[in-house]
Order: sequence, then structure tokens, then C-alpha cells
Amino acid sequence: MAFDPRSLKRYFPILDWGSKYRMDTFANDGIAAVIVTIMLIPQSLAYALLAGLPAQMGLYASILPLVAYAIFGTSRALAVGPVAVVSLMTAAAVGNLALQGTAEYAAAAITLAFLSGLILLAMGLFRLGFFANFLSHPVIAGFITASGILIATSQAKHILGVSASGHTLPEMLEALWEHLPETNLITLVIGVAATAFLFWVRKGLKPMLIDRGLSPRMADISAKAGPVAAVVVTTLAAFVFGLSDHGVKIVGDVPRGLPPLTLPQFSGEIWAQLFGSAVLISIIGFVESVSVAQTLAAKKRQRIVPDQELVGLGASNIAAAISGGYPVTGGFARSVVNFDAGAETPAAGAFTAVGIALAALFLTPLLYFLPIATLAATIIVAVLSLVDFSILKRTWGYSKADFAAVLATILLTLGFGVETGVSAGVILSIGLHLYKTSRPHVAEVGLVPGTEHFRNINRHDVLTDPAVATIRVDESLYFANARFLEDYILDRIAGDDALKHVILMCPAVNEIDTSALEALEEINKRLSDGGINLHLSEVKGPVMDRLKKSHFLDELTGQVFLSQFAAMKALGDVTYQTPKPKAAE
Amino acid sequence: MAFDPRSLKRYFPILDWGSKYRMDTFANDGIAAVIVTIMLIPQSLAYALLAGLPAQMGLYASILPLVAYAIFGTSRALAVGPVAVVSLMTAAAVGNLALQGTAEYAAAAITLAFLSGLILLAMGLFRLGFFANFLSHPVIAGFITASGILIATSQAKHILGVSASGHTLPEMLEALWEHLPETNLITLVIGVAATAFLFWVRKGLKPMLIDRGLSPRMADISAKAGPVAAVVVTTLAAFVFGLSDHGVKIVGDVPRGLPPLTLPQFSGEIWAQLFGSAVLISIIGFVESVSVAQTLAAKKRQRIVPDQELVGLGASNIAAAISGGYPVTGGFARSVVNFDAGAETPAAGAFTAVGIALAALFLTPLLYFLPIATLAATIIVAVLSLVDFSILKRTWGYSKADFAAVLATILLTLGFGVETGVSAGVILSIGLHLYKTSRPHVAEVGLVPGTEHFRNINRHDVLTDPAVATIRVDESLYFANARFLEDYILDRIAGDDALKHVILMCPAVNEIDTSALEALEEINKRLSDGGINLHLSEVKGPVMDRLKKSHFLDELTGQVFLSQFAAMKALGDVTYQTPKPKAAE
Repeated sequence: MAFDPRSLKRYFPILDWGSKYRMDTFANDGIAAVIVTIMLIPQSLAYALLAGLPAQMGLYASILPLVAYAIFGTSRALAVGPVAVVSLMTAAAVGNLALQGTAEYAAAAITLAFLSGLILLAMGLFRLGFFANFLSHPVIAGFITASGILIATSQAKHILGVSASGHTLPEMLEALWEHLPETNLITLVIGVAATAFLFWVRKGLKPMLIDRGLSPRMADISAKAGPVAAVVVTTLAAFVFGLSDHGVKIVGDVPRGLPPLTLPQFSGEIWAQLFGSAVLISIIGFVESVSVAQTLAAKKRQRIVPDQELVGLGASNIAAAISGGYPVTGGFARSVVNFDAGAETPAAGAFTAVGIALAALFLTPLLYFLPIATLAATIIVAVLSLVDFSILKRTWGYSKADFAAVLATILLTLGFGVETGVSAGVILSIGLHLYKTSRPHVAEVGLVPGTEHFRNINRHDVLTDPAVATIRVDESLYFANARFLEDYILDRIAGDDALKHVILMCPAVNEIDTSALEALEEINKRLSDGGINLHLSEVKGPVMDRLKKSHFLDELTGQVFLSQFAAMKALGDVTYQTPKPKAAE
Repeated sequence: MAFDPRSLKRYFPILDWGSKYRMDTFANDGIAAVIVTIMLIPQSLAYALLAGLPAQMGLYASILPLVAYAIFGTSRALAVGPVAVVSLMTAAAVGNLALQGTAEYAAAAITLAFLSGLILLAMGLFRLGFFANFLSHPVIAGFITASGILIATSQAKHILGVSASGHTLPEMLEALWEHLPETNLITLVIGVAATAFLFWVRKGLKPMLIDRGLSPRMADISAKAGPVAAVVVTTLAAFVFGLSDHGVKIVGDVPRGLPPLTLPQFSGEIWAQLFGSAVLISIIGFVESVSVAQTLAAKKRQRIVPDQELVGLGASNIAAAISGGYPVTGGFARSVVNFDAGAETPAAGAFTAVGIALAALFLTPLLYFLPIATLAATIIVAVLSLVDFSILKRTWGYSKADFAAVLATILLTLGFGVETGVSAGVILSIGLHLYKTSRPHVAEVGLVPGTEHFRNINRHDVLTDPAVATIRVDESLYFANARFLEDYILDRIAGDDALKHVILMCPAVNEIDTSALEALEEINKRLSDGGINLHLSEVKGPVMDRLKKSHFLDELTGQVFLSQFAAMKALGDVTYQTPKPKAAE
């Protein structure tokens, strides 16, 4: 087999953009990397705590995975690393297996990253990216909103300085209520102040800086450093005033150094228990990642390759698993920052990894006095921007089925946790789609006088022949609606003694599967028993090709007409047609 | 609220046919009942053993459930009671909870019947019968064939007279091979002789009797009594020669009397463990039952009411649960016999119940010496008629996707048991359907010269305008293909600088859900960014009604045309069209 360098570039996109890498690209990527690093240090610590893991695992998940994505990923602006929703899902998945704070818990998170990596890689290599299409937009929107609420609520305990647990909204609220009297006032002050400050940084700082003469870009970058300012100020306060002696929880000892080499657990039992969660995390992570990557690529008229994105994210997660991290994906907010800061290639991600590695080597001692409440404030402000109930209003007006799917996703996510919520959303979306297509729109049609067009006899003044019934079915025929069609036609002919021909008009039939074919054979036989011929009209090319492979056309008592008008001319007694009265409909 | 006798008849079909019941109907129903009773006595014992239950539970499941169905059912020929596939599924479900032969095992089977009854009733009252549509015909055919093989194999141990167990084909074959040396020769002789005799009765007896001058109907009835003859002869042999002392296993003590009053276990844990199995048993049972009922009803131009059938079967299963039975449904073979024997109303079932009750009262002592091998032979001969691999050949020729679903169903049923097999078949059917619709057929079309028709530019000589691209999508637009359409259109416009208009031609679009609407909004925006207008043509009435409820039409940069020809006249420069060469396709 000859060596084809294109195929290598397909699997290693770095060979493509890397070969054209120039000095000015390096400068732009470098600036973006600095900004993302500043944003990522507090976020990575915070999300690790959200996942129930030691803070340093957040840093570890922000080093090697970014390098792996830079080699295999196709998006030029995607910022990979720990993200809020996946961290919450990790806590839910691993929490079933082990207690937070134990070595088993961390090991299970590493194993989860490994499994998720394998699943993403497999989906990429077998081009199964279409699985992500089964998550409908409304379900994703509902899930993200509900997750934002869950995450913000889960952090409230750190703002209050109490211990409380739970994976669902009722559990969390009950635990918070129960522990409310134990609130640590100093922690509360730090937490509320940090939250208020970060909200102000997000909304008020940038316009103020621009007013004072800063360029919009510099103002934007300064605003992104808000969380770092909050971290520095509250850490200093905790150090100077010895707040940990007054019950303020601090991050404490974070091991200094580069990520350790780790291995996932190779236990069939653990893999089996984590598999379902790993599939959900992989798909949710992929959807979040690919959505933001596509949006950003389109702004520069670039394209990403979704199947190769799966490989990139898969490699990232395996990298996380072998370097003490936990499941990662492309984060929405950080990717937008990376793009806005001028990142031009995935190298920006690799440079970010260097920044985080330096932080892991030299900054961790400085994080000792960082109050947990500050990290909680960072998370709360970040995730509340994800909460958006407008999807409920939009779907209510447009499609009640989609509304039902969103509402169920939101309520079940809040009430029963992330895995139940998103699973129910997917199942409900698919179920409602199948339900809709299982009762297709079927109309009996007649000829619009003076034209070759046929329209619904209940909506229009049309010509019909009592000996001919033309039934137009507005859906592909497949197993879910095969019985419906059979019932509809047999009900239609019952007691109609004048009928000699039934024409099935198929312009909207894009497929006839084996179940539907058997139903058509049955209809043909039953009509034949009653002395009625079955005809088809306007069958599409691919459907006709398929029918020719079966015996159906041999058994068909009638003909197949290219157009409905030709069918009516051949079968109907055009001169004796009587106009039907227009029904109220 | 005024009393409406029709609504009562809707829920109690017995009020309808019962009020018209006449003496000659009674005679016909009575004869059918005698024949079905003769067939049902050995079958009910055999199927109870197949389910791993004491023989009398088969009799109990053939009394009250039949009466309940006669009150609530709408089919005039359906013979309800224990059937092979549901018995096998019962063994698989209950075997997870308890050991065969224990009181817990029987109690779990009773609970399973109760749960299955509740599920069927709920499906009937909420009109959820369409759930059964998700089982495609090929999946059902594959499942029934694989179940037939599993059941026949499971009975081989009784023919050999050895103990062997297993729920899957490899387990069973391995166990049989292991225990082969322990074969009891007398049992083997009885088993093989009974099997051969019953096959001969099925194939050879009826023609022979007709040859000898019997009327075809009498010949048929005599052939149906074949299993009873086998039972009588082998029981006598076992009694006379004391075969049980030579290791031949016999039925033994079957308690004499009417069914006891029983109650299901009301334990949340047991219900949770049985729920999934109960759903599968309910749906499989319903599908088997409604298929045969519809076929038989159609022969007399009658109709059944599927949602009321659910109520009828639900009532039967609850009746089974309170009278010491186990899950029941309408059996295929017995229903055909019932119909052929002249049953005219559900009363035939009630009369059969009387027959079985008399058997339970008076015949059970006579069954003491009945060899198990004879019952096994009855089952083997009955289920092998279900085995039919022709579905593989038919789907291979017609639809590879359906072929894959059947093959997976057969292999997984044989390899991993009934529940895995049928679940995988359903999931695969739905998955393949979604996969197909997620990559819809999309064609760029042009005007057929001299007509108003538009055809695929790659298949036909058509006229196009370089400034106008008309894209026809042959599928409803919904979440699974929303991204595909977006990708297709954005790929199409990339680099085409002459393009000014994109027309989306929608004659086969039967639905646009919220995800697809968002994709259209995105396409509109991206095209607009590139100075291209998006138009729609031939949008169906219901789809247009829905679009008017959204903001999409306000934002649309182009127009909505009633016909594609009108769109081309308005947007295309008809005089400057250049015919494209016909591509090879």
C-alpha cells in the first residue's frame, strides 16, 4: 500500500496547520494562551471540587489533555479541559461507586475518563458522530439550564460554609435547609462578596474600563482576570487574618509538581458500572464541544470535522486518564474567550497547557489559603449564565411535543439528577418523534378542476369518482406506522360498495421498509378479496428501485402510475365526476 | 352525567354480543370449546413445565383468564391461555429472582402475571397500543423463530431424561452435551416415539383419514386429538410397566380441585426487578395476540379494537394472578383451531374454561403417570412450526437494515436469551430508522424543459440558473437530521460566488421540529451573511401553519412560493439557462 500523506493529515490535523505555522500566529496563540491560563487556573480547581475530587486533579486535567487535543483536534479555537456540566456528571457517576475523598473515588474518576476516551475514539473511528444528533436542540437547552441550576445550588453550601450533599435539587435544598443554622458568617461574607464582585466584573467592569479610556480589547482581557483578582484578594485575606482558624474552609495542601502517571482500573465490574455514565458524558461532552467549535469556525468561514473531533476529544480523555485527570471536553465559555483573544491554531491550547504546568509546578503553595467559597463563587457566576428558560416559551409556541421533551428534561434533571434527566430527554424526543410518525397525516384527495393538481377533499372543492379513492400518505412507511395505514385503508373501504380502485399516492413516501411492505401486501390481498384493485402513484425513484426487488409489484392487482393525473385519467370516469361539498374542516 | 349504554358496551364487549346470543351460536361455540379443551389440557401442563412451574399452574392459567377475556375481549376467535413464548419469557424473568421449584418462584410468576396485567390495562385505558408498533415485523419474525429454537432445545433434556439448565442456546447445548452420558434409554424411546407420532399426526394423519372417507372437518378434529392420544398411550405404558421405577420422570401428584385464590407479592423491590420483564411480556403477548386476532377477524370481515384487546388481556392476566396462574396471552395455534372449529363468540373461551375446570377437578389423578417426555414432545412439535428462517432471505433482498435487525434479534436471542434478544431488536429497529432518516436523501433539482416539473440534476437533463440552487429534501426535518441539512447547504454554497438564491423545496417535508427550525434559522443567517437569500417552495399546509407561529418567516431573507415553478419564474433568469450534461450518477 502506497503511503498517502493526506490520510495521515486526516488523523493528525497538526501536520496540516503545523507545517504552515508562522511567527505572528505564534504571537497571537501565545496571547490567547496567557488569557485562557489566567481564566483556567481558578476554574480547573473549582470544577475539580465540583466533581468531588482533590483540587490538583483539575490542574492535571488541564495539561496533557490540551496537548492531545492540539495534536488530534480540528477546531482552531476550542479550549479543552474540565467543564462544569461534565464535572457534575462525573460526581453523579462516581458517587455511585465510592465515597468522596477516598482513593477509590479518584481512581473511579480516572477510569471514567479512560472509558469516555475509548468511547469517543470508537465513535470517531467508526464515524458514529451522528449519535449526537439524537439529542434534540430543545433537550440540550433544557438539560444545560437544569444543570446550571443544580451546579449553582450545589455550590451554595460552600458560600454558607456548611456541609451538605445530594445529587438532586430537592436533596440539596433539604440538606441546605437542615444545615442553615451552622452557617459560618465569615465564609458567607467572603462568598457573597466574591459572587457580587464577579457578577459586577462580568456586567459592569468592561463598560467602565472603556469609559475610562481603555481599548475594548484590553477592557475585555482585564474583565477576564476578575476571578484571579478575587482569588488573590480572598487568599491574602485568609492568610493575613488567619480565617481558617475561624472556620473558613480553605483549599489547603495542593501537591506541587507535574501530573503523576496514572492508570485506569481494569476491572470488568467497574467498567460495567461506569459504562452508561461514560456514554452519557461522552455524548454530552461531544455535543457541547462540537456546537461551540462549529459556531466559532463559521465566524472565520472554516469547517471542523465532527468525526475527527471525536478522535481529538477521545485522545484528550485518555490523556486525562494517564495523567491523574478526570473527564474533559471543550468548554463553551473558555473557547469563546480563546477565540476572542485571538487564538489561530490548536497550538494555543498547547501553550495553555504549558501555563497550567507552570502553575502546578510553582503556584500551588500560594493556593494553600484560597477560600473554597471563592471557588464556589467562580462556579456560580459561570454557570448561572447557562440558565435560560426561554426555550420553554419558544417550544410552547411552536411545538407542544418539543415543549414536553424540554419540560421533562428540566424537571427530571432537577428532581432525579443529570443522568436520569438527559436520558429521559433523549428517550422522550425519540418516543415523541416515533409517535408522531406512527400516526401520519393521511388525506383523501381529489382533482382541482381545470388543473392536474390533487388536494384534500375535506379542504378543497375537488372532483372525485365514487369508484376511485385516492389516498395520499404524508410520511415514509415503516414499522411504526405500517399497521396504521392498514387500519386506515380497511376502515375507508368498509361498506363502500361503489369502490373499484384504491390509489395510494406516494409523493411524500421516502422509504417503505419490510414491515410496511408486508402491510401493503396485506392491504393488496384484502382489497383483492373485496374485488378492489390497489394502485400506486408518484412513487419516488429510490422507493421504486427497492419495490422492484420484492414480489409486491408482481402481486399488485393494479398499476403503478408516474403521476396521479395519469392514474385518474386511466381509472376515473372523468365525465361523470361530481363535485363534493367543501367540508367545514 | 346521563348514562350512556354505548360506553358500557365499549368497555364490556360481552354486553354487545351477549345480548344477541342464540342457540345455534351456543352449539358452534360448544363444539369449538370441546376441541380446544382437548388440545389445551396437555399444552397447559407442558407450558407450565416450560415456565419452570408446577403442572397444575398451567391448568389454573387456563380457567379464570379465559372467563375474563370473554367479558372484556373483542376478538371472537382468540383462545387465551398459556403460550410457549410467554412461558419461556416467564422462566427467564422469574429465574433471575428465585430457584425453580421453590414457593418464591411460583409467587414471582404470579406477581409477574399481575404486573403484566396492570401494564396491559394501563396501556389499554391510556390508548398506548401504538407501543406495539415499535416492534417491526422482521424483528417479531426473528424473535419468534429464535424462541422456537430455544424452546425446542430446552425440551431436549426431557426427551433424553437428564437434568440440564440454561437460558441461552450455548448454555443449553453445553449442559446437554455434559449430561448426554446419563441419558435414560426408556425415556428416550418414549420421547422420540411421541415426537415422531405427533409429527406424523400433524403431517400425515389428516390426509390418511380423508383418504379413508372421513370428512375433512372430522379428519382435522381427529388430528387435533393426537396429543391426547400420545398422552393416554404413554401414561398407560408408564402405569402398566412401572416405568418411573426405571428412571422415567413422570408428572406425579397434581393437586385435584379448582384454582386456589392467590395474591401477588406487594413488594416494591420485587416489582422493580420484574417490571422490565413484565413490559416485554406484555408487549410480546399483545403483539402475538392482536396479530392472530386481526387475521381471524378479517376472514369474517369483522374488526377488533386493539386498545380494548389490551384491556381484555390485562384482565386475563390479573385473573391469572388471583387464581394461581401465570402470564397468559392469545395463542396463535389454539386460536386458529378455535376459529376453524367454528367458534363464533368469546363464549367459546368461557366454555373452554369450564372444560379445563372439569379436568382440574376430575382428571388430575389420571395424569400421575404421564411421562414428562410426552409433554416435551408436545412442545417440540408445536414450537418447531414457528421456526421460519425465510424472513432472513426476504429482508436480505429487500432491505439490508431490516436484515441486520432480524439477524441481530435471532443471534442475540439464541446467544443471550429472550429479553436481550427482543430488546436489542427493538432498539436496533428504532436506531436504524433514526439513522436512515438522519441522513435523508437530498437532491439538487432543475427544470425539465417544456414542463413545470423539477428533477435531480444528476439523473436528468434539466435547466438550471447558476444564480439559483434548488435543493429538495426528501424527509421530514427533525432533530436527527437538522445538522445534516445545515452541513449540506453550507457545503453546497462554499466557494460558489455566482449564487444569489437558495430554494429549499419541501414537498416531502411532513414536519419541521424545533431543532430543525433552529437549523433553518442558522442557515438563513449564514446565507444572509454571504449575501444569499433563502426561499422555500411547496411547503405543506400543516408545516406552514406551524412555521407561521414562529419568527422564522419574519427573518427569512427570501419568500415562500406555493410551487417550485413559480419560484423559478420569479427568481431564475429563464432565458439564460444552460442545460447541464447528464452525469453518470
